[in-house]
This record gives sequence, structure tokens and C-alpha cells, in this order.
Amino acid sequence: MKQVFLYDTTLRDGSQGEGISFSVNDKLNITKKLDRLGIDYIEGGWPGSNPKDLEYFEKVKDLGLKNAKVSAFGSTRRAGLKAEDDPNLNALLEAGVQVAAIFGKTWDLHVQEALKVPLEENLAMIEDSIGFLTERGIEVIYDAEHFFDGYKANPEYALQTLLAAQKAGAKWLTLCDTNGGSLPHEIVDIIQKITPYLTVPLGIHCHNDGDLAVANSIAAVQSGAVLMQGTINGLGERCGNANLCSVIPNLQLKLGLKCLEENQLKLLTEVSHYVSEIANVVQPNNQPFVGQSAFAHKGGIHVSAVLKNPKTYEHMSPEWVGNKRRVLVSELSGASNLEYKARELGLEFLNDKAKMKQIVQEIKKLEYEGYQFEGAEASLELLLRRAMNEYLPGFHLESFKVLVEKRGAQEIVSEAMIKLRVGDKIVHTAAEGDGPVNALDNALRKALGEFYPVIGEMHLTDYKVRVLDGKDATAAKVRVLIESKDATSTWNTIGVSTNIIEASWHALLDSMDYAIIRKLSEDCQKKQEMAAGEN
Amino acid sequence: MKQVFLYDTTLRDGSQGEGISFSVNDKLNITKKLDRLGIDYIEGGWPGSNPKDLEYFEKVKDLGLKNAKVSAFGSTRRAGLKAEDDPNLNALLEAGVQVAAIFGKTWDLHVQEALKVPLEENLAMIEDSIGFLTERGIEVIYDAEHFFDGYKANPEYALQTLLAAQKAGAKWLTLCDTNGGSLPHEIVDIIQKITPYLTVPLGIHCHNDGDLAVANSIAAVQSGAVLMQGTINGLGERCGNANLCSVIPNLQLKLGLKCLEENQLKLLTEVSHYVSEIANVVQPNNQPFVGQSAFAHKGGIHVSAVLKNPKTYEHMSPEWVGNKRRVLVSELSGASNLEYKARELGLEFLNDKAKMKQIVQEIKKLEYEGYQFEGAEASLELLLRRAMNEYLPGFHLESFKVLVEKRGAQEIVSEAMIKLRVGDKIVHTAAEGDGPVNALDNALRKALGEFYPVIGEMHLTDYKVRVLDGKDATAAKVRVLIESKDATSTWNTIGVSTNIIEASWHALLDSMDYAIIRKLSEDCQKKQEMAAGEN
Repeated sequence: MKQVFLYDTTLRDGSQGEGISFSVNDKLNITKKLDRLGIDYIEGGWPGSNPKDLEYFEKVKDLGLKNAKVSAFGSTRRAGLKAEDDPNLNALLEAGVQVAAIFGKTWDLHVQEALKVPLEENLAMIEDSIGFLTERGIEVIYDAEHFFDGYKANPEYALQTLLAAQKAGAKWLTLCDTNGGSLPHEIVDIIQKITPYLTVPLGIHCHNDGDLAVANSIAAVQSGAVLMQGTINGLGERCGNANLCSVIPNLQLKLGLKCLEENQLKLLTEVSHYVSEIANVVQPNNQPFVGQSAFAHKGGIHVSAVLKNPKTYEHMSPEWVGNKRRVLVSELSGASNLEYKARELGLEFLNDKAKMKQIVQEIKKLEYEGYQFEGAEASLELLLRRAMNEYLPGFHLESFKVLVEKRGAQEIVSEAMIKLRVGDKIVHTAAEGDGPVNALDNALRKALGEFYPVIGEMHLTDYKVRVLDGKDATAAKVRVLIESKDATSTWNTIGVSTNIIEASWHALLDSMDYAIIRKLSEDCQKKQEMAAGEN
Repeated sequence: MKQVFLYDTTLRDGSQGEGISFSVNDKLNITKKLDRLGIDYIEGGWPGSNPKDLEYFEKVKDLGLKNAKVSAFGSTRRAGLKAEDDPNLNALLEAGVQVAAIFGKTWDLHVQEALKVPLEENLAMIEDSIGFLTERGIEVIYDAEHFFDGYKANPEYALQTLLAAQKAGAKWLTLCDTNGGSLPHEIVDIIQKITPYLTVPLGIHCHNDGDLAVANSIAAVQSGAVLMQGTINGLGERCGNANLCSVIPNLQLKLGLKCLEENQLKLLTEVSHYVSEIANVVQPNNQPFVGQSAFAHKGGIHVSAVLKNPKTYEHMSPEWVGNKRRVLVSELSGASNLEYKARELGLEFLNDKAKMKQIVQEIKKLEYEGYQFEGAEASLELLLRRAMNEYLPGFHLESFKVLVEKRGAQEIVSEAMIKLRVGDKIVHTAAEGDGPVNALDNALRKALGEFYPVIGEMHLTDYKVRVLDGKDATAAKVRVLIESKDATSTWNTIGVSTNIIEASWHALLDSMDYAIIRKLSEDCQKKQEMAAGEN
């Protein structure tokens, strides 16, 4: 089976994305994940441009990586300098890596207009820089910046730059579509034209400005490239780099090429979500292969077909990349979606047809009022458990009051007071917040935290408000969705009302309720297992 | 120049995306935008599956569309029914459209396992259904569901389904990669194989499960397809459909094919953001072509090169799709936009360079905080007028207080108290509402109405809330947009705060302020005209 090697630049090119900034610690944590995933090369940073990257290269040595070689990024020497005097090249030595990626100019426009250097000098810069590093035992990957644009402008000169790198001992020649505007047929055409002149294996580095980075990367591999450069989730400057989370499964599962071991490929979804978390980026639900909706079925026809045979509406098995199938319950769906959901939760009312019908009616009624359970599966689970009388309300609301006050130029103040009954105790407490909902959230945590320690372990991670019918403007109905998280999982809850405070209140309550109930049922399960063990 | 026709299914397949739900009004608004953009066919819904879609088809007739034909979606008749007795086909007639897209089964697996119908009957279902509609003067597009998967499984049968549709009078045959798992070389290969048998022009409908929907769509056009089906921003089930915002500029600007007029293409960014807004979906910054970061430059080397020659790090000119370059480190943009706006309003501070700079700084600061004046031009106008000291505050806030209270099972109550100074009078009043913002709105109207009758003539027509940074959950910043209306015009205002009440308050105040100021300046103009008349 043909092997494609993986070169990840999430930590270097990925960090050029707008709003992305990794600490040294973030980088080390991501490095560990990428190594476990089975990445062959991890580009850790640019020591010559960013002094904090040297700290990374120092510390990464202690991680004891199993699969990956760590690579440092740098540019060819400055014009007119000797390689040994170039601070950038010396920084690469200082980084103490076995592998370095050196980028150089391919495009005559860049050489002449941006660098303002004669074309000949640029060739010497490439050759000297690579020679300097290979002589010192470093495996050099040459990144031919703007290769495809350069080739279109001046094919002869573009090829000369590659030949200079090859002659100097580069182990790989990576062709870069730096501006991200090439089309697959151009990639194929150009690689075919240059291949006869080259003895060194080719790599590919694509950007996504034309929404074609994945396709261009695959086209390059189909034309002979064997080193795949990209980033997790396609992070990177402007529209990002080729998304390895899409490229890898395409190469391995669709084209039958070898990138990762089967059990490593199953980590893909986890790694993708981990990097989003560390980068503090919202993961698009619809991200191919690894997104939360990638195998989610909404339409009733789709659901009933998938339940008969998943191949009908799934291009591959979600488990292969560590993702899972989800069936969404919505106004477009029927009883089969609900059945699937109930079975997933282990709720045994499937044979009680009257109950089923009643629940479907209840859901339809709520959806008519503006509820939407597909984005709020925890609320749906609570609804099902309540319908089953499986649900024991842990606490009961007596009253709440929210006060928002603004006086003259003073800061606005938000306070919430709540009165709850927990068992036979009354809790009456108050808290401030950054707004009325935050104040309610704080008061609720304060009130419940002492009874349910699990509340202290969870936190809210997202809050969405949707006005359902704008026509009524400030008297319109609003739908609030809340996402919550603890150490191991994420859940979503919903509230709907013409009053945004009330809608938020319902979503908040469901979120905390869910955390408490899940804890109870986990504890119950543990006890059963222990009891079973004793028998 | 070869023409590619555009078929948008944002309103039908797009609404299958998780979390997407359009009201009839949303659909009509999006239809108007798509028509202005120059889309050839707009698929409005599935009247047979969703009764609320019939309301859309009724109302869309009154929009007076200039470019687009509206299409209704449906399936082939049920097995064993006559076409004229099929409720789904009759719903298409009821919708009163000139164009219908009928999907049918290509894949023998689906025919036999999902439909449980003999292969021959499926062919008859295709033929009868299309015949039924074409005989009634409807232009029929046949959507061959799972065409590529079906062809891979049983090429002969797949082709027979197309021939049945062609024979029955379909005007277009759209090949669907329904499961979204095909690769571009497969698309090309299969289209080449079937083309010799077909006389009807081909369309293409791709899904993005392999992150290749854009590439597959382009490959299909390069192989001869001339009807491009997709959605704005790639909305759609699972990983979405082919993103027209990426496909269109690739076809038109990269391949030189004709899709839209040049000035229509410039609306692409606006339409993309509009649909995200209506769908209440966060627009990814890094979305190709139309994203906020698509032409944003961060790295120092990139910025200095781009300032010398944009071609160095831009694959195309952002203006072609109505986007703009952004330089993330040094701010150079903004002044010209502002100048344009000020001139439009007749505000004469263009020569006061210091003032201009100060206003640009102020706007940048507000945008950094989350303001976005594109959707709130009334607020922008107020900001400019205030900076010009043209603005005479009609009233001044002393204080407000909002109280939301819930007791046991009683209805939730929302009250607002406000204290304003109008001229030298103090107004202190209170009102209830359907929520805290509605209560504030009511109190403000009550307080201002007696001084400014114009407040009685205006009303709020839309209220939108967007959470700007979900990561902070209930303590996150929110942006409130309010649309207001009187007998003659509509205006939009904005407020941003971590406190939803405060954000709403600012947007409410701006809205009423704007109504008052506009009235004053109209009155002033009338007096001047009368005075001029007397001379």
C-alpha cells in the first residue's frame, strides 16, 4: 500500500490565522496529541522570527514523542550574507531539531518586487541555505513558496529554484499554493510537467482561498506527491491551510493510501475538537468527517432509510474517524427518530405505543411554540425521562426576581434573587452578574452548589439567542440555547418564551438538572456494578 | 462565453442543516436577495412535505422577481399510484410554479431496500411523474438522487433512470452526489461515460461530506454540466451542500465562465452575510471569498508585500466579490468608506482632517467592541451627527430599572421604570411588557410620546440578538439590532454590551432618537423651503 507522509503545521502556519495565538504550553499539548494521532512531522515554529518558539523547541525534547519528528521553519539566507552568518539559519541550529523546513522564492515577481534581489542571487540563496543545514546533518524540506503562481508566470525559473534545492541536498520538495487560488487541474498539470526533472520526492502545501485546498492536496497526491502538509481544522492565514482532518480520511478511506494506523484514525475527531478548544475557536458543526453534524440525520425519509441501512445516507462509517451517527428530532422528523433516540438512552417504553404517541404530540406542540430539540439533546432527554416518570426533580423553584438598574453615568448593575426548595430545605440567595442572565446563572450555582457538588464541576460554554418572529420586535418570542461542559462531556439545553429571562431560566435549569441527573444515574450504575461484583 | 445557470436551494436543502429553520418571512426576504444577486432558479420549498411552504409559494408571486424563476421541490409519485392521484405531485400544481424539481431514485440499493419497489416500477414512477408535470406546462428538472453512488453500484440501471427522465420530457438532468462522498476524478469519469447517451443538459448537486463539494461541482462543469445547484454558505444537511459563494467566483473569475453580471457578483459578500444573519449562523471568518478574514493579512512580510503589490499574497481582487482587504496590524482602511457615508448625509466635515481621523478612531474602537455599522446605518448617522455637534440631544436619561419576577406557578412579570429629563422637565414613569426589553420599550414610548408625537407614529419591526463570543456563555457580549418603521421608511440601530438589557436600551434609544432628529430636520427643511418660497 502506498504511503503518504503527514506534515502538520498547525503550530506554525495555523497560528497565522486571525485570532489564533498559542502559548508554549498549548503548543506542547497539541504536539502530544499530534504524536498520538500518528503525524510524521510536526512543524513547531519559526525560531528565527519568534524567540518564544525557542522555548518550545527546548521543551519538546522532553516529551518523548513516539511517532513524530519535530521540524523547525525558516527562510533562505538574506541576500548578500553568507549562510553561516545568517541569524535565521543559525536560529534553526540553535533549535536543535533533526528536521528543518526552509522556504524560498519561486515567483520572479516576488524575487524582483518583494525581495528586490536578482534572480540569480535567489537561486544561490536557496542552494547555500539548504547546503548549510544538510552539511550539519539536518533533514531539509524545501518549501517552494508560491510554486504554482510562480510556474504560471515563469515556468523555467520556477523549475530552476527546485533544481537548486535538489542539488543542495533537500530531502523533500514541497510545492506551495501560497495564495490558495489554484484549481485542481492546474495542480495536476504543473506537477506532471516538472516531475521528469526531479529525483527528490514531492510534498504539497495548499491554502484554502478558493475553497479547494483539500481537493488540490488530493490532486497533488494523485499526481505523485507523497508528503502532505496541512493543519488540523484547516487553521491558517486568511482562509486557512489544507484541513488534515479532511485530507487524511479521503486519502486513506477513499483512495486506499496509508497515512495512519486504523486505531490512530479513530482519534481524528477527538484531536480536531481538542485543537478547536485550545485555539478557542468555535468548531463548525458541519465540518466534514469530524463535525458534530457530519453524520446527523434530520429529514424523516433519511432517518428511516439510515435505520434500515446506514449506507443509504452515509458515505462512510462515522466510527472510522471516531465520530458518531446522530438522529435529530425535529418538526421534519417522525416517530422513527424518537425511537432511535429512546433506544440510545436505554429508555424502555418502545412497546408502549400510547405513550410514544403522547410524547410525539408533546414534542410537536413544543416545536410549534418554538422549541427545537435537535440542538438541545439534553433537554430532549429530560423530556423523555420526565414522560417516563424516570425523572425525580431534585429541586423546586419557589420564586426568582431579576433587577437591572442604571443610574446616570454609573455602571449598569444586574442582580438576581432566587428562592428554591431542595428536598425539604428552602434556599434563598442572591448574586450579581454581567447581565441579568449571568446574575441568574451565578445565583443558581450558589444555591445548588452546596447540595450538588457536580454543579461546581460544570460550566456554561455557549449561549445563543434567536428571536423567533422578528415581526413582534421586542415582544417577540425568543429561543435560548445553552451549551454546558464538564471534564468529560458537553450537553445542550433550550428554553423558549416571549421573555428572554424566562427562556434563559429554563435553559439554565435544564442544564443543571441534566448534570445532576446524569451524576445520579452514573452513581446508581456504579453501585449496581459493585453489587454485581460481590455476587 | 459559456454560461452556467445557477440553481439555489438554500431555502429547501439548506434548511435541512442542523439548527436551521426559516420562517415564511425569512424565506421571502432571502428570495429577494437571491433575485438581486442574479440567481436563475430559486428552490423555495417542498410543498408536498411541508404545508407551510404553500404559504411561501402563494406570497412569492407578489415579489415581482426580476431574474429568478421560483422552483418547487417534490418526489416521484408513490409506487402503485397514478400520477394524477399522487398528493405530492398535486401539491406541486397547487404551488402554482413554472418550474419543479422532481427527485427520483438512481441507486438499486435504495429502490430495493428503502423504497421496496421493483426496479421497473421505479423507472415508471420517474417517467409518469415527469410526464404528468410537463403535460401541464411545467419546466421539470429531474434530480437523480445518489446518481454517482448508484452508477458505481449498477451503471446500467443508473443510466436507465436518466433515460426515463429524458424520455418523459425533463428539461434538465441534475446528477446528485447525495451522500457527498465522491471524489472529483470519479465525477469526471462518470459524467464522461454517460454524456454520449444524453441530449438534455446536465446539472450538478453536490454535498460536502468529503470536503470536496466545491471541487466536485467545478469538475462537473469542466465535464459539461451547465446547471449549478448549491446553497449560500453551503448550508445543508450534515456537512452541507456545495457553497455557491465559493463555486460562483471560481467558475466566473478562475474559469472565465458566465454566471452573474459583474455588478451582481459584487453583491456576493453582502448576500452571504445576510443569509448567515437570517439563519442565525455564525459566519466563519475564514470562509473563502466572502469571509471577514478572506483577505486579511497578519504576518509582517505579507503586509509589506501586499502594500507594494496585492498580487503577492492575494489570489484575486477582493472587490470583485464585494469583500475588502484588511490589514490586521496597521489600520489603513475606513476613512474612504466614512467619507462616502458623510457625503451621502450631506455632512460637511470632509476638510477637517483631524475630525475625520478622530471619527475613524472612534468607529474602529466601537467595531473592536463588537459594533457593526453595516447593519445599523441609523446608528452610524447619529454617531456622525454627534461628532459634528449637529446633534441636539432631545432627552437625557436619569435612570432606569428593570424588574423581572417569577413566583411559583404564576405568570412571569416584567416591569420597567424610567426617569428622563426632556428639556427642563423630569418624566418618571413605568410600564409592563412581555419581557424586560418590551417593558423598557413601552416605558420609553410612554415617557417620550407626549413630547414627540413622532414616537407614536413609529414602531419596532424586528429585534435580533447575537451572542458575540459564545465562549463566555452567559457573561458573553451581545449585539442587539433593532429595525424600526414609520409610514414612509425603515431604519436600523444597534447596541452592544455584556448586558442584554443595556445593549437593547442603546438600540432602542438610538431608534427613537433617530425618529426625532429626522423629524426635526424635515421640519427645518420645510421651513427653509417656505421661507425661500416667500422671497
